[in-house]
Amino acid sequence: MHILHDNYTVGENGHLFVGGCDTVALAQKYGTPLYVIDEGKIRSNMQRFSALLRECFPAGSRVLFASKALSYVDIYRIAASEGVAADVVSPGELYTACKAGFDTADVYFHGNNKTDADIAYALDVGVGTFVVDNEDELLALDRIAGQKGKTQPILLRLSPGIDPHTHKKVVTGSVDSKFGTAIETGQAMSITERALALQNVLLKGFHCHIGSQIFDSAPFIEAADVMLAFIADVYRKTGFLAEYLNLGGGYGVTYTEDTADLDASRVLREIGEKLRTFSASHGIAVPKILIEPGRAIVAAAGVTLYTVGSHKTITGYRTYVSVDGGMPDNPRYALYQSDYTALIASRAAEAKTERVTIAGRCCESGDLIQENAPLQPCGRGDILAVLVTGAYNYSMASNYNRLPRPAMVSVRDGADRLVIRRESYEDLTRNEL
Amino acid sequence: MHILHDNYTVGENGHLFVGGCDTVALAQKYGTPLYVIDEGKIRSNMQRFSALLRECFPAGSRVLFASKALSYVDIYRIAASEGVAADVVSPGELYTACKAGFDTADVYFHGNNKTDADIAYALDVGVGTFVVDNEDELLALDRIAGQKGKTQPILLRLSPGIDPHTHKKVVTGSVDSKFGTAIETGQAMSITERALALQNVLLKGFHCHIGSQIFDSAPFIEAADVMLAFIADVYRKTGFLAEYLNLGGGYGVTYTEDTADLDASRVLREIGEKLRTFSASHGIAVPKILIEPGRAIVAAAGVTLYTVGSHKTITGYRTYVSVDGGMPDNPRYALYQSDYTALIASRAAEAKTERVTIAGRCCESGDLIQENAPLQPCGRGDILAVLVTGAYNYSMASNYNRLPRPAMVSVRDGADRLVIRRESYEDLTRNEL
Repeated sequence: MHILHDNYTVGENGHLFVGGCDTVALAQKYGTPLYVIDEGKIRSNMQRFSALLRECFPAGSRVLFASKALSYVDIYRIAASEGVAADVVSPGELYTACKAGFDTADVYFHGNNKTDADIAYALDVGVGTFVVDNEDELLALDRIAGQKGKTQPILLRLSPGIDPHTHKKVVTGSVDSKFGTAIETGQAMSITERALALQNVLLKGFHCHIGSQIFDSAPFIEAADVMLAFIADVYRKTGFLAEYLNLGGGYGVTYTEDTADLDASRVLREIGEKLRTFSASHGIAVPKILIEPGRAIVAAAGVTLYTVGSHKTITGYRTYVSVDGGMPDNPRYALYQSDYTALIASRAAEAKTERVTIAGRCCESGDLIQENAPLQPCGRGDILAVLVTGAYNYSMASNYNRLPRPAMVSVRDGADRLVIRRESYEDLTRNEL
Repeated sequence: MHILHDNYTVGENGHLFVGGCDTVALAQKYGTPLYVIDEGKIRSNMQRFSALLRECFPAGSRVLFASKALSYVDIYRIAASEGVAADVVSPGELYTACKAGFDTADVYFHGNNKTDADIAYALDVGVGTFVVDNEDELLALDRIAGQKGKTQPILLRLSPGIDPHTHKKVVTGSVDSKFGTAIETGQAMSITERALALQNVLLKGFHCHIGSQIFDSAPFIEAADVMLAFIADVYRKTGFLAEYLNLGGGYGVTYTEDTADLDASRVLREIGEKLRTFSASHGIAVPKILIEPGRAIVAAAGVTLYTVGSHKTITGYRTYVSVDGGMPDNPRYALYQSDYTALIASRAAEAKTERVTIAGRCCESGDLIQENAPLQPCGRGDILAVLVTGAYNYSMASNYNRLPRPAMVSVRDGADRLVIRRESYEDLTRNEL
């Protein structure tokens, strides 16, 4: 049997297994809290998206791993070995990719606010493509690239004005957004003309990203429609034909039994059809398609293991189960009231007969992992697993309350290896004088 | 003139000054984003609370700095030199205090979920007082203290069942809370009797904390009433007379012109009156009072300096000013929609003629510092200051999007010194294999 995703299974001993490894044994070997990441699942997700692109789109279309979802040295090695490019949003992510030996020609540099120093650094290490957010950045890039005698390939990030029906904090493609330049207002056409007139940038196409955790295929199709219409407009007006159309990510991943993953194959096949029609009706070549799944590649690969510290029933109110981590290693419930599925790792197949609030160990009431969650009975010392924590957990982790960040162990086909060492107390104070 | 708090002033050059230092010059000297912390303001706040305690309460009453608000090595040195004790909520904060040479006898160890390892560590370094949250912890502490041949002084954390009229994420003293043991349900009396019967813990009194950012004096008074009634109850029932009553913190601090700081002197004087009446009517000695201001000591001491990267007006919608930091160095708007006051440091006294959204540089729509904020006109390269960032900014900071955490510079009477070095990219990947 599996739970939620095919890589979460229950062993004969009744324990939760991930990537063929017994989570209770992992907790014992590495301590808790512990991030477990299933390399096999990451690879199969990357392969699945790459196969879909080969099926639906012209040669030269690429999967870009949106590494802000989970950035650490080893994951860029995995992406490279799977032929997947990388989307980075900061010099820190770029540095991490470089440290892994990732080919910078395959890096797309995103972000709504690149400093002059960031731009110079990215030019120096040979980033393949900048995704330019706004006119201030466009002019700074042109200036700095000129100083360095480079001509930098770019995409322009546009906002297509699509409502993706998701949490407002993760909507990114509406007109009123800190990201990109709006098509609706005419500002997108104006920045395109500006980019085409500059000497030190080379426009290769356009980018949009409508948001995160989208379970409905319609907004993706609408966004592709808007972007294709814009490409045709630009072609008519300027003669510039976009070589690339980057449609971003946002493919919904299930965290609980109530929903199913978005069917990315359906979305991409439908966009493939659109492209062929578009090309035929305008008599222009189909652009190569780039997509940027992040969560859809890593979320289900991750599980976080905690040790239960206290089980407290407030008579007439509710039951709190406190664990040895919390919002510092997973701030998503505090930020977005995100749903999660939890279970007691040593009794994974048993009935969840309790309803509890899973509380972190921080001195803050909002430090909860989940409220009103079904759970097996448990007590101090039990291992509690929270599923689907591969995306935006390690990458958003803090040291709030001076909690060291957990270690991360990579699992694959029953083998485990440490990929991130647990932070030490000394690490926490290393820069303090 | 000053802005919001008396330590924010405008120099003759029109620049914002903090602790007598020109913030534009600090940004130039140390780079941005930059945390500025005013040591003079921290010391004067500590002195003010200590003086109030001397005025209102019996000898032996103490100010405990709630160091979760801002924990770094140097601040424990400042507290020690001001005769202020420390409240720590984790072994990481305890380690930091120890590294500063802070006397562990003056440490109060809080937290809703202390692991066995935490308890052992705190016993080994000689923590003065444990604030015990629940029965699981009480029994673990008694067992481990016994193994080490120690008798550990403790307070019991109770929930008095007070609604402090503040943001629900920071309410901590209601009956339905992950913290402490409820008086209303009878569970507080039961854990008290249990503690009195144990051999290796020594009950010294009780603790409560009703929440954060409270601007109304009534909930503090109500909480004191409930706790005093409980102390009398316990005395009648068991003969145990509490030596200490710890009333926690939560004193509201203003972040904008719309509110004023809570008048702590009024609250504490009124509680002082209550104590004398209580003592007279029950014929028992007045307990020593402990208070735990955190934010009230450090919030106004802090300012964060950013460099503006882009100024983007979306025609017909709004204007975004993007800065080179954001939710990684200050997640409070993303978490609680917290109010902040911002200004352009080089034009601090000029009229705020724009209304803007101040956006961070993360690839996330929710990464905002403030919406609909009045601001002076600005452009790429200007220094933007966000006021009142001394509490829960550095302490909650993450590396989301792999942004290094800012440096922190301590200012006092016109002098500046680095107290936290800026994180390097190498720091970010140090533990990654």
